[in-house]
Amino acid sequence: MSSLTAIGVEGLPEVEAGASLGQLIVERIELEDGDIVVISQKVVSKAEGQTRRLSSVIPGAEARKLAAVLGKEPALVELILEESSEVLRAERGVLITETHHGFVCANAGIDTSNVPENDTVCLLPEDPDASARRIRDEIVGQGPDIGVVISDSFGRPWRLGQAEVTIGCAGIQPLDDWRGRRDAHGRELEATVIAVADEAAAAADLVRGKDSSIPVVILRGLDRFVTSEDGPGAVALRRPASEDLFR
Amino acid sequence: MSSLTAIGVEGLPEVEAGASLGQLIVERIELEDGDIVVISQKVVSKAEGQTRRLSSVIPGAEARKLAAVLGKEPALVELILEESSEVLRAERGVLITETHHGFVCANAGIDTSNVPENDTVCLLPEDPDASARRIRDEIVGQGPDIGVVISDSFGRPWRLGQAEVTIGCAGIQPLDDWRGRRDAHGRELEATVIAVADEAAAAADLVRGKDSSIPVVILRGLDRFVTSEDGPGAVALRRPASEDLFR
Repeated sequence: MSSLTAIGVEGLPEVEAGASLGQLIVERIELEDGDIVVISQKVVSKAEGQTRRLSSVIPGAEARKLAAVLGKEPALVELILEESSEVLRAERGVLITETHHGFVCANAGIDTSNVPENDTVCLLPEDPDASARRIRDEIVGQGPDIGVVISDSFGRPWRLGQAEVTIGCAGIQPLDDWRGRRDAHGRELEATVIAVADEAAAAADLVRGKDSSIPVVILRGLDRFVTSEDGPGAVALRRPASEDLFR
Repeated sequence: MSSLTAIGVEGLPEVEAGASLGQLIVERIELEDGDIVVISQKVVSKAEGQTRRLSSVIPGAEARKLAAVLGKEPALVELILEESSEVLRAERGVLITETHHGFVCANAGIDTSNVPENDTVCLLPEDPDASARRIRDEIVGQGPDIGVVISDSFGRPWRLGQAEVTIGCAGIQPLDDWRGRRDAHGRELEATVIAVADEAAAAADLVRGKDSSIPVVILRGLDRFVTSEDGPGAVALRRPASEDLFR
């Protein structure tokens, strides 16, 4: 019988800059070969010192103009623009950009909740795939052969609510390509590529409270998607702008 | 320790029109109170006779024109248009519409794989929330207090690969609204509404092969999202067009 178990890792301390997340995780849970370790972006960013104090940011002219239109804080808009390569939408109080990593999301993924100081915001990791590779190395160095996913909550067009997606990964096959394979009736499957890494991020989110008390979740039973190499990372999940009808 | 288990239900027969899915499921797995039963759209559509033979469809002028532009079968395009209220994009071989249900997806959710006859295609259920309520009734009538999700694979803008989402549900809270609640540091959470039903659909997909040999998956450990009433259904997941920046 095929099955999957998701287990929340409890008891992680407040993560500070410089923390070794891999070490913190292996100290708290016995990992098995084939596990996927799903980690909230927020703790990865904190461990990497990717936080900023808004009071230290000087907003430029463009940020001040956009902030006035959107009713947002000018320093926050300045940071969003610094983290972005392109503004896709700026209306109705919403700022959707493409980040330097190539992710399309609100506010360049900058988050103002779950950070200790009121003036502090949290940016995405500079290179989330590199973060995943580093954390994977820390864990694999201790024995277990596992995959690592770094996830964040993104809103979606057309559908309400946020869903967790993968912004960085290592040791996991992010896409499962069924094109050319046949269905149960022998008919060739059409255009079926499954975003396994995003589904894994979503599954992990279900055992995690949004108060971020459980930033790390272990997925057990997905061995077939765990790879011995780091693999292509979450950049493989980016749809090229030239193939995207909704920009 | 918080955890979630997803269990694939094996041994379901080929589902034919008129089948009672609830009955077929309870015969094959011992359900517990608080389980969520996630069912692939395809078997629900088949049980409801929502299949069509392309050779029986007479394409109209608009369908023939679009089919020529997109390189698609005219009869298939006719069916897509019949199932849709609005065409959002028709280019590069891709037809994105809003269905009568209010879902934005490719080909109005019509699927040509995993159907026994080569000429047959499968439409979405007419009212997937009603389908979920009916299947829930069939199961709850036998004892266990469970939620039902009907799921389908949708593509996404900006990201490659399809992810499973919920197109119908009953007995489950589709959105978990954290607005106004506080994070671990006492700061109010901003705009955080989690699409729990979509994350549940994604989690279930991970234990299901795309050859559709496992159309039913049980999620155990999400009792807190299971409700005694049918609830709002998946229509609650539709973002109103007036609030959508990507149409």
